[in-house]
Amino acid sequence: MSLAKVQYDYICKQAKEATLLHTAADALEWDERTGMPPAAGDYRAQQVACLRGLAHQRRTDSRYADYLSELNQELSGNDPSDLPAATVKCLHRDLQRDQKLSTKMIEHLSALTVRGQQNWDAARKNNRFSDFQKTLEQIVNLKREIGSRLREGTENTAYEALIDEYEPNATVKHLDQLFQTLREPLVELIQRIQDAPRRPETNLFQRALPIKVQREISRYVATQIGFDFDRGRLDETSHPFCTTLGPDDCRILTRYDPNHLASGLFGTMHEAGHGVYEQGLLTEWFGLPPGSYASLGIHESQSRMWENQVGRSQSFWKWLTPELKKRFAPEYDGASADELYFAANAIEPSLIRVEADEATYNLHIIIRYDLEKQLIDGALQVDDLPSAWNDRYKQDLGVNVTQDSQGVLQDVHWSAGLIGYFPTYTIGNLISAQLFASAQHQLVDLEEHFSRGSFRDLLEWTRKRVHQYGRTMTSDELVQQATAETLSSDHLVSYLKAKLEPLYGI
Amino acid sequence: MSLAKVQYDYICKQAKEATLLHTAADALEWDERTGMPPAAGDYRAQQVACLRGLAHQRRTDSRYADYLSELNQELSGNDPSDLPAATVKCLHRDLQRDQKLSTKMIEHLSALTVRGQQNWDAARKNNRFSDFQKTLEQIVNLKREIGSRLREGTENTAYEALIDEYEPNATVKHLDQLFQTLREPLVELIQRIQDAPRRPETNLFQRALPIKVQREISRYVATQIGFDFDRGRLDETSHPFCTTLGPDDCRILTRYDPNHLASGLFGTMHEAGHGVYEQGLLTEWFGLPPGSYASLGIHESQSRMWENQVGRSQSFWKWLTPELKKRFAPEYDGASADELYFAANAIEPSLIRVEADEATYNLHIIIRYDLEKQLIDGALQVDDLPSAWNDRYKQDLGVNVTQDSQGVLQDVHWSAGLIGYFPTYTIGNLISAQLFASAQHQLVDLEEHFSRGSFRDLLEWTRKRVHQYGRTMTSDELVQQATAETLSSDHLVSYLKAKLEPLYGI
Repeated sequence: MSLAKVQYDYICKQAKEATLLHTAADALEWDERTGMPPAAGDYRAQQVACLRGLAHQRRTDSRYADYLSELNQELSGNDPSDLPAATVKCLHRDLQRDQKLSTKMIEHLSALTVRGQQNWDAARKNNRFSDFQKTLEQIVNLKREIGSRLREGTENTAYEALIDEYEPNATVKHLDQLFQTLREPLVELIQRIQDAPRRPETNLFQRALPIKVQREISRYVATQIGFDFDRGRLDETSHPFCTTLGPDDCRILTRYDPNHLASGLFGTMHEAGHGVYEQGLLTEWFGLPPGSYASLGIHESQSRMWENQVGRSQSFWKWLTPELKKRFAPEYDGASADELYFAANAIEPSLIRVEADEATYNLHIIIRYDLEKQLIDGALQVDDLPSAWNDRYKQDLGVNVTQDSQGVLQDVHWSAGLIGYFPTYTIGNLISAQLFASAQHQLVDLEEHFSRGSFRDLLEWTRKRVHQYGRTMTSDELVQQATAETLSSDHLVSYLKAKLEPLYGI
Repeated sequence: MSLAKVQYDYICKQAKEATLLHTAADALEWDERTGMPPAAGDYRAQQVACLRGLAHQRRTDSRYADYLSELNQELSGNDPSDLPAATVKCLHRDLQRDQKLSTKMIEHLSALTVRGQQNWDAARKNNRFSDFQKTLEQIVNLKREIGSRLREGTENTAYEALIDEYEPNATVKHLDQLFQTLREPLVELIQRIQDAPRRPETNLFQRALPIKVQREISRYVATQIGFDFDRGRLDETSHPFCTTLGPDDCRILTRYDPNHLASGLFGTMHEAGHGVYEQGLLTEWFGLPPGSYASLGIHESQSRMWENQVGRSQSFWKWLTPELKKRFAPEYDGASADELYFAANAIEPSLIRVEADEATYNLHIIIRYDLEKQLIDGALQVDDLPSAWNDRYKQDLGVNVTQDSQGVLQDVHWSAGLIGYFPTYTIGNLISAQLFASAQHQLVDLEEHFSRGSFRDLLEWTRKRVHQYGRTMTSDELVQQATAETLSSDHLVSYLKAKLEPLYGI
């Protein structure tokens, strides 16, 4: 066996064992969020930390680092479609980041953000930012330091180095340009909708519907989308998410409101979108880059496409409405498909990101992006954050924040150390619109299929254009390859206008 | 810091980390048995094997072995109530066993028994022992070899060395004597019951009762017994069990039959008995011997006490019957407490161990004990096993085995390599009767309390007499300490006679 083969086998073994340990930790976290006994949290944290630590060791030991560096030099000229070469390239990239941070720093961040989330939770309940301010300052300072270490030897700013963990290769220049060209037309569109002559009957979705029935509807829709229940589960939790515990074990979680069908239904479609992406990755490469997701932006594009481009389309409601009435909920007998479609597209500036509609949602993200960028580069201090937040909400969304809990304290992310994460949500929205435009262009009768409850063509298209590549292409390369264009905000703007203008009669 | 302190801290750290990894694996197995997606089994097996392997490493590395040997010599004269000394003694005992088996042998056994269980399952479904015979021969041969390695340097036989894994210090001589003195009076009692003038109305429990209602009853009874739901859960599975995932995370699992309340109810009480034992161990010593169960016989004594001495008592049904009618199941309106009590004590020789009653159950165990002892010492060959099995069932229980699936293929244990495990079930029954006799003697108005749904005195008594000692005493020492007698079969025989003779009018 050649030396290169020995080296390659070793790094794959280590990376796969790290994944084995990470997915075991992920299973423990899934359990923690679906019904672990209340008193069991402390020991569970120890179990998870132990497993994550062992995983980190496997991806940083000196033999692993040496082999990877040698292989990376050797294979650097290879074609990116050569999967072993792509594997080495991605793992080498990860190693560059991982090596810049000491174990001590990672432990410090881990401890600080566990306390940070507890502290945030209490402050939010007390509705008082000042209770959380000191902890957030510590987190921001540590993340500044981490960012400045990670940027060493690159052309990134500290903030870009932080984003890179979630969306590799993203630059502030590009994001600024994307978000700027998105923001202006969105603000204008939202304003016109607020002055529109027609309004949807939003209370159509606000009728009592037993959770048992909502579960059946969610499971039915997830199955139709293509989520494979032989290789996954759908459960309930307070903050919906999707997690992958093995090549044939994807768990999606939603939450139901007994008086609001749309909440649980769109939540399920969103998470099922993440789920079908995970289920579409190459199982034989599980635990290695060709079998891993490309970026959080790409991941979010898949969830958003099923939630929005599909779930909030006229053809989807043309299919679901009679199914709803006939199979699940005679409560909906009085409502027409078009009325439900309109209600699913209610646009209204509001205070809370997770409840925001498709158009205003991105304004929430852009505000967070601008503020966290300033926090990291030092232009904004933590004690000025609430007023900066409130000013921007007034200015961008026209709403008054009167309580911290409904303002700067609403999201868990910063308390968990997730700074640089928010932009991936809007990147995902942009990508989903651009991908969907291509799919519409390339596939025949797509919406006619939707109106019959058939989503297979779209799923197959995403499998072929996105899923099968795993992490062997960057986000930008994937978008270019699938849509023959670089990423822009045009498609999301056109899509929203094309849908909302006729609906609202503007 | 003294050298001994450094050594002691190291062995504790290693042992606790091994427990952290084992409990993570246990959590993955709990998930596997409560709803893991069907296709996820292969990867799950890899995850569990990886974690168990890492745990094994922590308890056999050379530094651990050296430190433990030195500490064991140093502390050998210490009082057993000195918890660090007891810790060293127990871990040293484990090490002696663990070191005798090579990793290769353990891997071989693991692979063989994973296949063995699949093979057994298929053979049972096909109702054909010959399909399983070859695999069982391999397992028996390997377990013989393991037994002969483990007995080296001891006075044990190979079979005793195997039992020792489940019930430390048990000897065949003692078990033979216990089982012999149990068997004769049991056979005689069962015969008299079969000829008795009165029979219970067993169909009292055979009425349709929604599983939702049965769940509520089970949860209510488990709570009354003292199972702490802040530190545990009750779930459903096909083969009920109890598993501990952390010091404050004990999971019990039962199964419900929509047409048989007693099945799920007694199953829950059994597992809740295991659960309150686990919850009564010293949490601050979790992962070390003072915070671990003493033996499987002691564990089973706790489950059997709640299932049988409590759950099948007249006073228990005096309490539960009106609760049942009033709170949960008006279906039971026609039944009296005494009728249900009698039905809960139906005695009838049968083919299937897990469905057997309190009296005949032990005959099932004694048959298995005799046969597996002969399998290991070579007096019985695997191909003679079915006829030996059938002969003994005819002779001891008076029933004809007409199908392998209802005979020699009914239990999973041997296919999983669990040879030497069965005796712990009857040991548990003997201990439960002996402990309960002492509790009745020492506690005032115990049964009057039961008849009001108050079980606190008994729980506290077991906490004080059994649970708090963990593994710092052996099973024999615990029994002696709690009951002021060595273990005998007298108490179980007296208890059964005292209950069953008046019920059956014999």
